[in-house]
Amino acid sequence: MGDNVQPITIWQDKAASAAARRDASLAKVEPKLEGIPDVLPLSSQDLPKSVLTPREVEITEKYSVTELLKTLRERKISVEEVTRAFLRRAALAQVATNCLTELLWDQAIARAKQLDALPEPKGAFFGLPISTKEHHGMVGEGVVTSASYAAWVDKEHGSNLLYDILYSEGCVFFARTTQPQTIMHLETSSNVYGRTVNPYNRDLTPGGSSGGESALVGMRGSLLGVGGDIGGSVRCPSAHVGIYGFKPTAKRISVFGQRANMAGKETILSTPGPMTVERDALELFMKVAVAAEPWRIDPSITAKEWTPYRFMKPLKIAVQWWDGIVQLHPPMRRALEEVVAACKKAGFEVVDWNCESLGHDEAWDIISGLYWPDGGEEVMNLMNETGEPVLPLTKFIIEEQPSVKKMTVQELWEICARRDAYRARYAKAWTDTAANGEREVDVILCPPSFGAAAPHEQSRYWGYTSQWNLLDYPAVVFPVTTVDPAKDKKDPNYVPKNEKDRFVYEMYSPEKYVNAPVSLQIVGRRQYDEKVLAALVEIERAMGRP
Amino acid sequence: MGDNVQPITIWQDKAASAAARRDASLAKVEPKLEGIPDVLPLSSQDLPKSVLTPREVEITEKYSVTELLKTLRERKISVEEVTRAFLRRAALAQVATNCLTELLWDQAIARAKQLDALPEPKGAFFGLPISTKEHHGMVGEGVVTSASYAAWVDKEHGSNLLYDILYSEGCVFFARTTQPQTIMHLETSSNVYGRTVNPYNRDLTPGGSSGGESALVGMRGSLLGVGGDIGGSVRCPSAHVGIYGFKPTAKRISVFGQRANMAGKETILSTPGPMTVERDALELFMKVAVAAEPWRIDPSITAKEWTPYRFMKPLKIAVQWWDGIVQLHPPMRRALEEVVAACKKAGFEVVDWNCESLGHDEAWDIISGLYWPDGGEEVMNLMNETGEPVLPLTKFIIEEQPSVKKMTVQELWEICARRDAYRARYAKAWTDTAANGEREVDVILCPPSFGAAAPHEQSRYWGYTSQWNLLDYPAVVFPVTTVDPAKDKKDPNYVPKNEKDRFVYEMYSPEKYVNAPVSLQIVGRRQYDEKVLAALVEIERAMGRP
Repeated sequence: MGDNVQPITIWQDKAASAAARRDASLAKVEPKLEGIPDVLPLSSQDLPKSVLTPREVEITEKYSVTELLKTLRERKISVEEVTRAFLRRAALAQVATNCLTELLWDQAIARAKQLDALPEPKGAFFGLPISTKEHHGMVGEGVVTSASYAAWVDKEHGSNLLYDILYSEGCVFFARTTQPQTIMHLETSSNVYGRTVNPYNRDLTPGGSSGGESALVGMRGSLLGVGGDIGGSVRCPSAHVGIYGFKPTAKRISVFGQRANMAGKETILSTPGPMTVERDALELFMKVAVAAEPWRIDPSITAKEWTPYRFMKPLKIAVQWWDGIVQLHPPMRRALEEVVAACKKAGFEVVDWNCESLGHDEAWDIISGLYWPDGGEEVMNLMNETGEPVLPLTKFIIEEQPSVKKMTVQELWEICARRDAYRARYAKAWTDTAANGEREVDVILCPPSFGAAAPHEQSRYWGYTSQWNLLDYPAVVFPVTTVDPAKDKKDPNYVPKNEKDRFVYEMYSPEKYVNAPVSLQIVGRRQYDEKVLAALVEIERAMGRP
Repeated sequence: MGDNVQPITIWQDKAASAAARRDASLAKVEPKLEGIPDVLPLSSQDLPKSVLTPREVEITEKYSVTELLKTLRERKISVEEVTRAFLRRAALAQVATNCLTELLWDQAIARAKQLDALPEPKGAFFGLPISTKEHHGMVGEGVVTSASYAAWVDKEHGSNLLYDILYSEGCVFFARTTQPQTIMHLETSSNVYGRTVNPYNRDLTPGGSSGGESALVGMRGSLLGVGGDIGGSVRCPSAHVGIYGFKPTAKRISVFGQRANMAGKETILSTPGPMTVERDALELFMKVAVAAEPWRIDPSITAKEWTPYRFMKPLKIAVQWWDGIVQLHPPMRRALEEVVAACKKAGFEVVDWNCESLGHDEAWDIISGLYWPDGGEEVMNLMNETGEPVLPLTKFIIEEQPSVKKMTVQELWEICARRDAYRARYAKAWTDTAANGEREVDVILCPPSFGAAAPHEQSRYWGYTSQWNLLDYPAVVFPVTTVDPAKDKKDPNYVPKNEKDRFVYEMYSPEKYVNAPVSLQIVGRRQYDEKVLAALVEIERAMGRP
């Protein structure tokens, strides 16, 4: 439908329908949430203690994922009790951060009862409540998925292969979470569901596009959720709320069944990934997802077993101090310095990863073009169907990127050839770290963003995550510290390198970022997923974490 | 350059330049070939005995690949003597079949001397002469590659990753072989190099597009060569000369460095594959190619070790008796019946693979569109540059296929989505063979073509090979029998199913196909490359081959 055609259904009606569905699902909560202050505090972290029962707080805070699974498997606690506790905490997270599209109250409790009635616990995720990003869809009667487009509100949805696997392993789906318009912002705001905010500081973004998940897991309204990542959408939100998030190599786990634009596009691929409060849950998730041999249903998936990696020598780490374009905010630089110091103390070999010669700006030029080979026409048409406003960060990622244009097939081939050449150049740079008899670098330690979570509408630099999507390198983020105004003062010696750098730096003042988590990222060569997670264990041990 | 612009260089000059290069390379042969009859016989199989020395015949006929490698490694024969014998036999193959673009006389002998001078033999292919498809290019000074386009004659070429690996394993490159115009015929004819013929019957095609390789290896002018396959180009020519040919899953080994059209196209991928006189050389080739970890240089390659497969139970084979579109010529049906009988006798479980419900016609519709998303514009422009004639089989594969058209990006996504849906449907059909408590089918046994090698210009049905490219399933061909006019009479009960079927059937009369080899094909699920080669061993053992 063109610009000049009057939309048949206006977007406000659609958004109202989605809100009604969400509100009806929240109205089921029993007992009702009580004790929520009229004016929400800046940080939502203390809300659960004043709203939930002590037992609910215990259930949702006491256990890691693996501990809770063990407790459930031993039937020391019922699935239903666990489910009800997380349902109530998720409902509170919704009030605090606006992270849900729907609470699956009835479905989750029915599922819990069914699992409790089994003669034996069964499945790797027996009884575990798992939250999911809305546009992925899921198994279940009456499931509808909008992917945050007004035009798709109330659109029916079939099953999702990954979620079918998790379900068959005994999990309980209980909450579906927000994503931004086009699912292509590093924040989470849409005309359908509104804005999701950071559970540590409501003036900051929880990141995006899996920002509903990060807000929910960041409040322990869920211990394990699933996001998706094509430019940072698992890692950015995980980093911004201080949880663990993993983007595997594409085609390791399946996107089969999710709803998204540009079906058939293969220039750059998204992948689902786990977002969780616990490091070891990442590997558990991957093991389970791969052990199901999803390639028998989705033949595009790489048929390769999950094979845990073990280091035989001390890690060799390359540190990316910056990406050659945008400098780090002080708390991010401090996080990097602290972890590097711990790695050196642990006897790891630490070298620099010099991005300045590796053209991360060219990488952005390529990937931003690859995102929209039709110049954004399909998504613009979809928004025009209902007249929903095109949000500023949508304009940023489509209209303000010089390399986005409606391509011919030849132009598409050209940019794909550039992508492949860039990937080969980067692979060579990594292989060359083993020149002159040196050991090859195991992983790159780098920031997942220029800083902590940005204030709303300011997430306009993707380079620290999208670089690894272009290269299809596996990458994990992990929490390191929080912004400390005493330590993280503005840098008096700062000199802008360019306009992007100036924009990013001017965003920073310590006061804006009170309590904001600061995370780091570990990146491995393409397809070395297991090695990245093994390196995370090593690095956290060096940091003094068991 | 458009149709109406006068070409700057006419194609005849370019072709003459290529011919001069080839002839100059053949003029190096020492001693000169003597005893070649003025009129070449229908079959070239007896020529070597009358032209080569008894010692040359012994060297080129006595050994399998693995035996020759063992003999070379033990230094019971020098690399130079082996190389000279194959150079002379390849030169004879050129006279007989027109299979070469260039004989690498000086380079090969220099390389052989270098290897003989090593204190110790080194490398998995130490001293083995390996022939290569011209458009792949190769390492070496002054290497030029035309890919059989007049416009590209004398164009310089850098190295090829796969060949760099083979070279570093000690092989001797000694001959480069022909491919057809556009590298997209199942025959081998071009304006640059002329027509390559079948070494068993010069009135038949050696297949294509790797028909230079098949003609050369089919005359034992090489024991191991490398072709490439995107619609049958390794398997069709291997089948037509009765040698072994393997098309692995795409991205198992690299095309990095080869020269071809439409760089950046990823709708459907080609893969190199070995073509050889010996079954076990296929797995040796794959092992060596994968062991080099090519993904460190070409990061698009699947990082997965080569892990030989071992069957723990008798094979379960599904037999494709026809593809639902074109019926088999009598010798092909007989070959299938004979091998099925042997499999049953060996205790394998044999079921039917019912293609009629699987839409192989739709598969052709999809893949023929995927081959030319620009409607063939790029290759047509390339041919127009020099005014070289567009050959009939080029017209067939571009202009005569209804689904070939110049696509928009949206149309490209649509056909890719159709491709993915078709792949998923087929994967489900395979998985469903394990329904009802049955065992899942291990492999499909099927024809690699409707019959033996076709008479020239008649190879207009790709379905028996291209099906497995669309699905990206690994597939191997192996020799079974030869056409026998006494056994393979025309079928008096034949009724045409459709126009394609009629065209194919009317091509057949036993007299045309005297001595023509007949081969079969084994196909596995995507990425189960090792399993396909293991099944080949099992099936050949059932046939009484050790």
